[in-house]
Amino acid sequence: MPIKNRQFVLAARPQGMPKESDFKLVEREIRNPGSGEVLLRTLYVSVDPYMRGRISGVKTYADPVEIGAVMVGATIGEVVESKNPGFQAGDIAAGYWGWSEHGISNGRDLRKLDVSLAPVTTALGVLGATGLTAYFGLLDICKPQSGETVLVSGAAGAVGSIVGQIAKIKGCRAIGTAGSDAKVRHVVNDLGFDAALNYKTRSDYTGALHELCPKGIDCYFDNVGGAITDAVFPALNLHARIAICGQISQYNATKPELGPRPFGWFIVKRCRVEGFLILDYQHRFGEGIAELARWLREGKLKHREDIVEGFENTPRAFIGMLEGDNVGKRIVKVE
Amino acid sequence: MPIKNRQFVLAARPQGMPKESDFKLVEREIRNPGSGEVLLRTLYVSVDPYMRGRISGVKTYADPVEIGAVMVGATIGEVVESKNPGFQAGDIAAGYWGWSEHGISNGRDLRKLDVSLAPVTTALGVLGATGLTAYFGLLDICKPQSGETVLVSGAAGAVGSIVGQIAKIKGCRAIGTAGSDAKVRHVVNDLGFDAALNYKTRSDYTGALHELCPKGIDCYFDNVGGAITDAVFPALNLHARIAICGQISQYNATKPELGPRPFGWFIVKRCRVEGFLILDYQHRFGEGIAELARWLREGKLKHREDIVEGFENTPRAFIGMLEGDNVGKRIVKVE
Repeated sequence: MPIKNRQFVLAARPQGMPKESDFKLVEREIRNPGSGEVLLRTLYVSVDPYMRGRISGVKTYADPVEIGAVMVGATIGEVVESKNPGFQAGDIAAGYWGWSEHGISNGRDLRKLDVSLAPVTTALGVLGATGLTAYFGLLDICKPQSGETVLVSGAAGAVGSIVGQIAKIKGCRAIGTAGSDAKVRHVVNDLGFDAALNYKTRSDYTGALHELCPKGIDCYFDNVGGAITDAVFPALNLHARIAICGQISQYNATKPELGPRPFGWFIVKRCRVEGFLILDYQHRFGEGIAELARWLREGKLKHREDIVEGFENTPRAFIGMLEGDNVGKRIVKVE
Repeated sequence: MPIKNRQFVLAARPQGMPKESDFKLVEREIRNPGSGEVLLRTLYVSVDPYMRGRISGVKTYADPVEIGAVMVGATIGEVVESKNPGFQAGDIAAGYWGWSEHGISNGRDLRKLDVSLAPVTTALGVLGATGLTAYFGLLDICKPQSGETVLVSGAAGAVGSIVGQIAKIKGCRAIGTAGSDAKVRHVVNDLGFDAALNYKTRSDYTGALHELCPKGIDCYFDNVGGAITDAVFPALNLHARIAICGQISQYNATKPELGPRPFGWFIVKRCRVEGFLILDYQHRFGEGIAELARWLREGKLKHREDIVEGFENTPRAFIGMLEGDNVGKRIVKVE
């Protein structure tokens, strides 16, 4: 019997901040899985900052989502029917079939989840791309040493909140920036950051960073960009390391934003700045997940999920996340 | 008998491009060398882009030159009198006593030159800080692989002209940017660059870079900054490496110049960008000079010196170099 499948397709290229009308809910019949394929019913959909880039129409690291195409994204689902020997009905698996109530996978990009190990939603967050992004970006690019100061922008976000906690595990001073007093309290009181800056109520960022980082900044993990990042350079210590993970402050700019040219600082501070994409670490995901899971079991790593209920609310959940209304990893629970 | 010593002191902090009146020629008696010290008569004075930063009044990697203080800089001189067992009258040595017709050194920062090995001026250029800057910046930071494309800005300058030649020695395609057709011809015809862009007669830099680097840019050695560097990012290959050596286009800005924020490109290209200072490689200078000297002997490395005669012309030689009127390493011959 054919299954009705609701999906969000891209209706229009967003100009600036996306609007709900840039996405359109359509209902289509989903075909039966072919040989080797798996049919899944979606339980959770991940919404993440990188998606803004994928709908901009510009080819970046991946082809853009075309108008009329299903919106991309990581998902968790229950196997309804499997013609793949690796999966059977009832299995819970993480994949990448997008904003869709059902999905078909050829099994290669599907990861069966051990539901006894951790709540399945962690596969989209702390034990998924989010946690891995924090893990490899901080440890592999910034290489923080015990006693150093680590600054992370977007500290209350999905990635940032894990970065600061890993910095603490590694014996560093962890400082964050966030967009509300509630977020500042959360990262300090709940997650163990040493301090955080509310960038919306303070304007002298460089002065604030000097206060919060009296010994200077050795590592900067940047999720945000813009004026915060401008202010970081004067506060860097010599030979600082910067990981550029995201630039959420810039994603909705309708034309490239101008800022003070930073490269003079690179010489003065002899700093190293590197952009990265978690997909480049795919061959090391096992190592990262094992370590993150260990910290989670040992209670060293806390994670907060920001669950929005109802598949039809996916665009709104995504837009809100871009506006910063989430604390922790935003996930849509389909039903 | 006391020796009259002419020196240039900093008379005023330059606003924008330095003027000759920002320096003042003074005549003072030089004291006799004390125990362990060496008195030298200056033969050559080096003028280099980094000096603009040292007179700006801002503490960068070194304290600024104060008003009334002797202008800093690398020098070559002949030992007039030595109370240091390591030197004797008649020796030729390289040091750092600044824009001064005589200097006193305690011997620690003094390097005796073997005049039979190479012309002594090479100690200020290809076999001195200039060559070492090219060598370590390119090989240690950019790590070019055979077959890759290396772009260098300021290609006809002292450092840039060596960078491109080392890139060729390493089997790379070497592309330069320079500010005149004569410079473009020089780097291509005399130094063996594969191609170069005259950035003053072409405005579409990104288009030009795509033409000159059809396989993309893997390594960028930046001496210049500004609009050239902006245009490099779209033309980078994935995992490109950028060494920030200088930003001469920005040194005379009276306030920080604005440009398009670059960090989004860092993610798209997953590039690594690092600023450096040659002093950080001091422990490896021997290795660098040995290799540069070997290439010089083997005829693989050409170098051009741009000699200005007359100590009194030092400020003019410096200002002209900032304006780009030199080809190769600018040196002032004292008499």
